[in-house]
Amino acid sequence: MQTLLSELKAIVGAAHVLTEGDLSAWTQDWRKRSSGKALAVVHPASTDEVAQVVKACADYLTQYPDSGLSIVPQGGNTGLVVGSTPDDTGRQIVLSLQRLNAVRHIDAANLTLTVEAGCILQTVQEQAEAAGFWFPLSLAAEGSCTIGGNLGTNAGGTQVLRFGNARDLCLGLEVVTPQGDIWPGLSGLRKDNTGYDLKNLYIGAEGTLGIITAATLKLYPQPKAQLTAWAAVPSVEAAVQLLGLAQQHLSASLTGFEMMGQFALSLVARHFANLRVPLYQSSAFCVLLENADAESEAHARAQLEGLLEAALEEGCVTDAVVAENLTQAHNLWQIRESIPLAQALEGLNIKHDISVPVSGMAAFVASTDKLLAQAIAGVRLVNFGHLGDGNLHYNVQAPEGQDAAVFLAEQETRVNSIVFDAVLAHGGSISAEHGVGSLKVDHLTHYKSPVALHTMRAIKQALDPHNLMNPGRVMRLG
Amino acid sequence: MQTLLSELKAIVGAAHVLTEGDLSAWTQDWRKRSSGKALAVVHPASTDEVAQVVKACADYLTQYPDSGLSIVPQGGNTGLVVGSTPDDTGRQIVLSLQRLNAVRHIDAANLTLTVEAGCILQTVQEQAEAAGFWFPLSLAAEGSCTIGGNLGTNAGGTQVLRFGNARDLCLGLEVVTPQGDIWPGLSGLRKDNTGYDLKNLYIGAEGTLGIITAATLKLYPQPKAQLTAWAAVPSVEAAVQLLGLAQQHLSASLTGFEMMGQFALSLVARHFANLRVPLYQSSAFCVLLENADAESEAHARAQLEGLLEAALEEGCVTDAVVAENLTQAHNLWQIRESIPLAQALEGLNIKHDISVPVSGMAAFVASTDKLLAQAIAGVRLVNFGHLGDGNLHYNVQAPEGQDAAVFLAEQETRVNSIVFDAVLAHGGSISAEHGVGSLKVDHLTHYKSPVALHTMRAIKQALDPHNLMNPGRVMRLG
Repeated sequence: MQTLLSELKAIVGAAHVLTEGDLSAWTQDWRKRSSGKALAVVHPASTDEVAQVVKACADYLTQYPDSGLSIVPQGGNTGLVVGSTPDDTGRQIVLSLQRLNAVRHIDAANLTLTVEAGCILQTVQEQAEAAGFWFPLSLAAEGSCTIGGNLGTNAGGTQVLRFGNARDLCLGLEVVTPQGDIWPGLSGLRKDNTGYDLKNLYIGAEGTLGIITAATLKLYPQPKAQLTAWAAVPSVEAAVQLLGLAQQHLSASLTGFEMMGQFALSLVARHFANLRVPLYQSSAFCVLLENADAESEAHARAQLEGLLEAALEEGCVTDAVVAENLTQAHNLWQIRESIPLAQALEGLNIKHDISVPVSGMAAFVASTDKLLAQAIAGVRLVNFGHLGDGNLHYNVQAPEGQDAAVFLAEQETRVNSIVFDAVLAHGGSISAEHGVGSLKVDHLTHYKSPVALHTMRAIKQALDPHNLMNPGRVMRLG
Repeated sequence: MQTLLSELKAIVGAAHVLTEGDLSAWTQDWRKRSSGKALAVVHPASTDEVAQVVKACADYLTQYPDSGLSIVPQGGNTGLVVGSTPDDTGRQIVLSLQRLNAVRHIDAANLTLTVEAGCILQTVQEQAEAAGFWFPLSLAAEGSCTIGGNLGTNAGGTQVLRFGNARDLCLGLEVVTPQGDIWPGLSGLRKDNTGYDLKNLYIGAEGTLGIITAATLKLYPQPKAQLTAWAAVPSVEAAVQLLGLAQQHLSASLTGFEMMGQFALSLVARHFANLRVPLYQSSAFCVLLENADAESEAHARAQLEGLLEAALEEGCVTDAVVAENLTQAHNLWQIRESIPLAQALEGLNIKHDISVPVSGMAAFVASTDKLLAQAIAGVRLVNFGHLGDGNLHYNVQAPEGQDAAVFLAEQETRVNSIVFDAVLAHGGSISAEHGVGSLKVDHLTHYKSPVALHTMRAIKQALDPHNLMNPGRVMRLG
């Protein structure tokens, strides 16, 4: 494979083909569950270089079909399902998009921004803001993840309720195909019915059908005010009722609706003494609401208070606070965002990223809580997530005092079965926003429709017949 | 093919396999540009029957690969690009979805409605309204078109600005594949990252990859008030400036933004004397705005008036009226919706359904107007459309007094070239919302990226290797 490496060095420059030293930043996954070995980490600097690298690899694989060569596209390497790191064969090229990080163009009248795949999400947000606009994709890893990775995995986050997933924020893509061709699909069009929806096929394909090198994204006018409220709700049913009321009162101004269980919040209180967690001690769940208003802060406050009054009257909220200023709002969001770390400090747990229809949420939680309590005495549930999207991080923690590693080793398979079976029974998805990667690929075989899997395989084989692009991710062939 | 017909009669009942009599309702296209001959018009009553019909045809085609048998799926047969009627070989089965017309389920807490493909769009709107919700897909043919056809062609309409195309209003599909299998993808989920986006691949594929038999659609809370305004604007630039102001002032409450040229409005005034067309005589363009408010009519009016005041001050609007009541609002919309008929009464013209980025709209119109005026002395432009989506129906009418049929025969090819070349130069699409069908399939070969066409063909061949489903539509193979 030395001739291939020489060729790649000629394309991107020797300094940008790493084969030695500590490559763990590219070969180990974000949650450190998997560590692989790369033939090389290659850093092209342009779409043309990406295309040439892919073409060189495709040619090599045609010449040596048994070489085991393949390409793993990588953005910020912050994925949660082991989708962007190499396996341990030492025959995979990690193709990092980090050097493709330019904001190419902001089109104010068209409300679009065109950006290269390696641009950090936070940079996209900042550039949009500097131009007077709002790019509303927002998630915990935004300081490290790249927009290419966000699109490759169809990332979700906290504003999906109003703006949709990464997919819904993208109007066009530039993609390098498994043959090394460039699809110039950087459309800034809101309407284009000239054939199959290739854009949405590449989005969420986790690099298995091609490499996203740039995207044209939607911008929105900045809201005049963003107000945050925190409400105590007695049950999941009450939270769902509050969601319905919020949708009626706030319509599209409702940009966040996060539900957090009492145990999840108690972990934040326990491990982050500096954060004052409101209202959780006397309530089974709390809800964080955000209202992004196009008019004024006074209007936003009146609307939010009107909603909470109605909710108190209807009994779905027992108590509530509205943040008085940005610091208070920031603190409320910090509590929500500290749950993942608080649970980690409590000890490893079994993580899920599931969705069910909002109408089935209460029944799902009640029945699954019960099944798990029956299966494992004293089991603790770290239940929180984007209720407005029907998406819960329904995580299962060892009973108090039990060793977390032992718990994981002994219970993970069983717990996954209980949770995923319940998800299926409630018409849900076993991966709402994190994707499949290699971590969930076997689960998918079990929980996804065989017709869908067959169709997915046919598409993969048609577009990447030599299985060059991120093999073994999303689905297995044959 | 008699054995096949017998088999189909056994599946759906002899009364639902039509082979004789006047079949023009199914074999002639909406605009009467094309009339074909069907082997049979088949009306299955359920998804299972659709699957059996497709399976029987697939088996027949496998046995007799030279028989020329294929299936043309059909909804309301209101398409504008000859995509749902048979060719003249007499070897195509028209598979009508008209009998699959049940509303299966309304899920209020999940804000979804599950409906069969043959349900008329207006029925979907009415059922949503009866349940207290809003299904905002709206277009001229809504009394006849079906939701399956809307999804198969990714229909647009007048509310795309806020809610997106048909694609964006759909959460899940049930599809019969070209092999006669059923994909049970009727998800009511807002988030599901378990593999390739099959839903969006089938949407807009115009029946070439499978048959949509049912869909789960998004519902929205009904607005408290819908207000309509009519503004005179001096130029396309001014209309674009007004759009930007409206997006800032009204945010997501802006649900309609239609621009109409002076000549288009003069045709309405000429052919519909009962409609009083406001403000058009002294202005190059008029804009129809709609504000759907979640709060109250008073609030909606204050917001809309605030916008128009700001626009008058900035000079992008020279005069404006706000409808005082529903009747006035209805009349304003009726003017907009009478443009297609008014131009028809004036004589056939050369129709376009193009899109360009909003920021390029003024330059596109100015340069293309000029090119056409140079090419054809006295040419008249019926220019109107969904400016908020960058979508114009940029239609070209014969010079005053010239015979329309002669004009079309002599000028259509040349006019199309001028317009489509200009669209391409401005980064636009030659079919914004009507689709490709057979009418634009040759244009696509010329104007679409070869990499995109290659990828589309690979997908078609992988999913429908015997080319059973609506062959020759969207693209040609080989």
